[in-house]
Amino acid sequence: MRFFSRNHIFHRSYWDSKYSKGVAFLRSYARFRETKSQQGFTQKDYALRNAGWSMSMYLSRGAVHGYTDLIPSFSQPQEKKYVAPVEELTSAIRTAGKKLGIHEIGFTKTNHEFHYADKFDQYNPSRKLPPPKLEGLDNCIVIAVSVDYDPLKTTPSAITGVDAGGGYSLCTTQGLSLVDFIHGLGYNAILSLNDTALCIPYAIEAGLGEYGRNGLLINETYGPRFRIAKIFTDIPVTHDSPKKHGVEEFCNNCNNCSSSCPAKAIPDGPPSVNIHNISNIQGVKKWTVDAEKCYNFWLNINTECGICIRTCPFNKDLDKFWHRMYVKIIFNPLRKLKLYKTLLKIEKSIGFDKRVKPKKWWESETFKK
Amino acid sequence: MRFFSRNHIFHRSYWDSKYSKGVAFLRSYARFRETKSQQGFTQKDYALRNAGWSMSMYLSRGAVHGYTDLIPSFSQPQEKKYVAPVEELTSAIRTAGKKLGIHEIGFTKTNHEFHYADKFDQYNPSRKLPPPKLEGLDNCIVIAVSVDYDPLKTTPSAITGVDAGGGYSLCTTQGLSLVDFIHGLGYNAILSLNDTALCIPYAIEAGLGEYGRNGLLINETYGPRFRIAKIFTDIPVTHDSPKKHGVEEFCNNCNNCSSSCPAKAIPDGPPSVNIHNISNIQGVKKWTVDAEKCYNFWLNINTECGICIRTCPFNKDLDKFWHRMYVKIIFNPLRKLKLYKTLLKIEKSIGFDKRVKPKKWWESETFKK
Repeated sequence: MRFFSRNHIFHRSYWDSKYSKGVAFLRSYARFRETKSQQGFTQKDYALRNAGWSMSMYLSRGAVHGYTDLIPSFSQPQEKKYVAPVEELTSAIRTAGKKLGIHEIGFTKTNHEFHYADKFDQYNPSRKLPPPKLEGLDNCIVIAVSVDYDPLKTTPSAITGVDAGGGYSLCTTQGLSLVDFIHGLGYNAILSLNDTALCIPYAIEAGLGEYGRNGLLINETYGPRFRIAKIFTDIPVTHDSPKKHGVEEFCNNCNNCSSSCPAKAIPDGPPSVNIHNISNIQGVKKWTVDAEKCYNFWLNINTECGICIRTCPFNKDLDKFWHRMYVKIIFNPLRKLKLYKTLLKIEKSIGFDKRVKPKKWWESETFKK
Repeated sequence: MRFFSRNHIFHRSYWDSKYSKGVAFLRSYARFRETKSQQGFTQKDYALRNAGWSMSMYLSRGAVHGYTDLIPSFSQPQEKKYVAPVEELTSAIRTAGKKLGIHEIGFTKTNHEFHYADKFDQYNPSRKLPPPKLEGLDNCIVIAVSVDYDPLKTTPSAITGVDAGGGYSLCTTQGLSLVDFIHGLGYNAILSLNDTALCIPYAIEAGLGEYGRNGLLINETYGPRFRIAKIFTDIPVTHDSPKKHGVEEFCNNCNNCSSSCPAKAIPDGPPSVNIHNISNIQGVKKWTVDAEKCYNFWLNINTECGICIRTCPFNKDLDKFWHRMYVKIIFNPLRKLKLYKTLLKIEKSIGFDKRVKPKKWWESETFKK
């Protein structure tokens, strides 16, 4: 059964009185109002959060967090089509995408089962709009961007947003640039962030990762620190297929995210078809995060959370030599030997998932030079 | 004497019949027309070039290459100012900028000697417009972005543009995001690319590098592979000062760029006050590139060149382990020992400055995964 995007927890802000506080909350990403003296929630922290989100907010032209509308392109397809074997076209898009700074790219077919049953209009929430048809756009290119680990280490704090938003902003600017490339080859393409269709099933189909307990896509290289977008297009491409890298079994043996979630929104049992409320997807056997509990926590702290990303053992900073060595020498071998308990003990003792104080983050020597 | 931007070689396309071919050339960066079957100049190559330039082209809203107008902001300053010691404000901007993906940031005072004497209107070239006053914006933040080396290795080719344009696009999107951060702190800020003022003197003042024989800024880390922008602002900041790292003496002993320039546009002698034509800056003792010869070559190959960047020994790919090792073990020690001739012989024998064939670049294994 297709999901009604009006039931998305963010969208309920606009019609469900239980979440009416959410309207000001979501708008604060374009212009914040409320700050505190508490470190991580000062004017400086919110200014940084919004700077991270800025390109995503502005280029989606008012669509909150890119959640309602396809992202308008700046360019048009060239009249002349670049004709080449499907393998060359696929390879050219992958090369162009990587050069434009996109970290992972996968290809699959457009599957309307992943699409919302409606289109939500935040300015007129009772309006019933059909979802976009995307006629002829039978292929879907899934793109994903990973951002730095360190801002996320301060979560909960407004600093985290420079990371989360920074990922969406890059998905927007570099996604639009990749759309421009496809237009340059003479084909149609349109960028989609969290509007129109669910990103995770598309990313799984395109071989970008596996679904994790925290309800996020876990990528083999970047773990859960990953923002996803998609491009619907009519350019011929070869299709990738789903890839497993042991996430399901790992998550079955790890409860870091659920035990560290202050909202108790993440299940600690096995995957099931049970849902918590109308904001969850029906009929899929999976770990299902209680979106109401999660969003209430966001509204309380007045910014996005991300503790379930910070505490996920798949989250490592591959820009740092010693993180890479740890992954290679300890994390991956123990994971493959299924020594989950030993591995999780080591993680705890090293303090990998510990929060970094926002004040300490701002004073970090890394950025001084 | 301040430079009249109407004499900028790009702008002469709009009023000097000798360069009237330049109008279509510059517009082709928003939408290309002419492609060839020759590798490096096919539709695929131009599509990639324009994808790299896209954010710079579109967000500067019609200003060619960001050369005429300040880049409009999406945000406005917050009413409330974030008050803190000047050191904290400077450090916060540096941290925010680095987190937003800007590679180098320096601070200096606004100096109108570096500003153009006029503002050029490409739609009405005979119109005499005064330059923007920037009242109260007494500080200048210089930001710079480095991009990958490999596209540039194919120069001359349209592929190079994904690198050159990609740098300007990131200067634009991440520069606008940094403007958003400063607005969030309650101060005024406006982004400037190649409009309004010369970037290189500002970058030198802000300690971002030294001037090289090829007329470019040579940064200590990224060499000449570097795109620069500036933010004029009223936020209080501490000022950096110029830093030397031996470029002048190196360039005095190296003629790689001038001997490899097919247009013979780069001088092979010592710095002088001599200029070639009205598109050069007067009264500064420096190496002066013949902008007419350079631009004529661009018009002939129908895309930007960059051979003087490709062949500059300061250009190394610091993302690659063996490049970093080479710089550490051979390049830097020999440079510091002033063994320029030995160093340049090694460079040649390794083939560091050799062109990579565009077809080979597209087929490179690096992007396949």
